[in-house]
Amino acid sequence: MPNELFTASLPDKHDVEEGVVFAPRFDASGLLTAVVTDARDNQLLMVAYMNSEALKLTLETGIAHYWSRSRKSLWKKGETSGNMQTVLEMRTDCDQDALWLKVSVAGEGPTCHTGRNSCFYRKVVTAGGTSSLILELQD
Amino acid sequence: MPNELFTASLPDKHDVEEGVVFAPRFDASGLLTAVVTDARDNQLLMVAYMNSEALKLTLETGIAHYWSRSRKSLWKKGETSGNMQTVLEMRTDCDQDALWLKVSVAGEGPTCHTGRNSCFYRKVVTAGGTSSLILELQD
Repeated sequence: MPNELFTASLPDKHDVEEGVVFAPRFDASGLLTAVVTDARDNQLLMVAYMNSEALKLTLETGIAHYWSRSRKSLWKKGETSGNMQTVLEMRTDCDQDALWLKVSVAGEGPTCHTGRNSCFYRKVVTAGGTSSLILELQD
Repeated sequence: MPNELFTASLPDKHDVEEGVVFAPRFDASGLLTAVVTDARDNQLLMVAYMNSEALKLTLETGIAHYWSRSRKSLWKKGETSGNMQTVLEMRTDCDQDALWLKVSVAGEGPTCHTGRNSCFYRKVVTAGGTSSLILELQD
């Protein structure tokens, strides 16, 4: 997917994996996957997606912006709740199609819209060939 | 996207977010996003994707299976390298479209095909409006 905000994907695999040029590989829907952890303890808070505009705004402002796949709109996380995310470190992976954001959450408020610190509050358990969910206490 | 291996997405938001029924929400490409961390220290190892078959095999065998978006094929991680991932815990998020796998890597070998423990070995740094990458030492 073409985008004019970032360097186009590099043709050479070695450059993609070992180079210093940031050339994010947006997927067929124009998105990167973003893994968001708490910078204090690396707790997994949420998974979200960024289009090139969201990534540009994140890099420019230092505040995490995403693309909401359900609402199909740009999303400044925490704009309504106040629990905005300051990005203390951003990493990319070997093929540059995913990002890892280490963030500080404003007010130490909840990240999940259900009021929990992390969106990953349920464990998947399988018994007798059937999987179900168990609520886990938050750290 | 219909799939016959798992419960279809639940119509009620409260059931999706607070219930105990595992009804994974595969995206338009039939995939869930999987965040993979080392169960020992929660280090982020990789991000991958699962279709319903990969998820079924993972739950049945306890060994992580993914869908390779580039090769468009089922992928038993580590089948070639030997560094297979035993899933010690699986979680899902509030809207059930992402998974968190806490794994133990066989032989404590590298997860990344570049030979590193984690695929996230480069930091994105921005200066003067331009972003580039810095190689980080592995933990």
